[in-house]
Amino acid sequence: MADTRTVTVTIRRRPSISDPQGATVARALRDLGHEVTDVRIDKTIELQVPDGDVETIRARVAEMCDRLLANPVMEDYEILVSS
Amino acid sequence: MADTRTVTVTIRRRPSISDPQGATVARALRDLGHEVTDVRIDKTIELQVPDGDVETIRARVAEMCDRLLANPVMEDYEILVSS
Repeated sequence: MADTRTVTVTIRRRPSISDPQGATVARALRDLGHEVTDVRIDKTIELQVPDGDVETIRARVAEMCDRLLANPVMEDYEILVSS
Repeated sequence: MADTRTVTVTIRRRPSISDPQGATVARALRDLGHEVTDVRIDKTIELQVPDGDVETIRARVAEMCDRLLANPVMEDYEILVSS
């Protein structure tokens, strides 16, 4: 739709926070014979929001991250507003 | 490290497959007063693999996706080898 815009939010654990799911996947890949030195599993959230000024959209999505989408203690987020 | 390379794999449910977690998040965002028309939650996997030829790395990671990381019935994947 022309009146919505796609915003992609990538939510990553801070590097100091361990990622047990990633460690399990790394072990499984090695068991299958693949060489991997590290695996991290992050979350990507694709939002469709009403179109408008890019900076307004970015600020609105940052508020969604702060209030609901990300855990401020353990996670960092990155917001990409599609052009 | 200079001898490893970062590969980012984004795993998305096919558009025809419903995303109940995304629907729940959309509802919660609306309850907080945000306008969103759709939310999809995807998985991003960041792998550190031994460096080498980009096409070889891509083929190797595609095999990891086919055998372990993605569900071929429900999900599509996209592989990005960092330059």
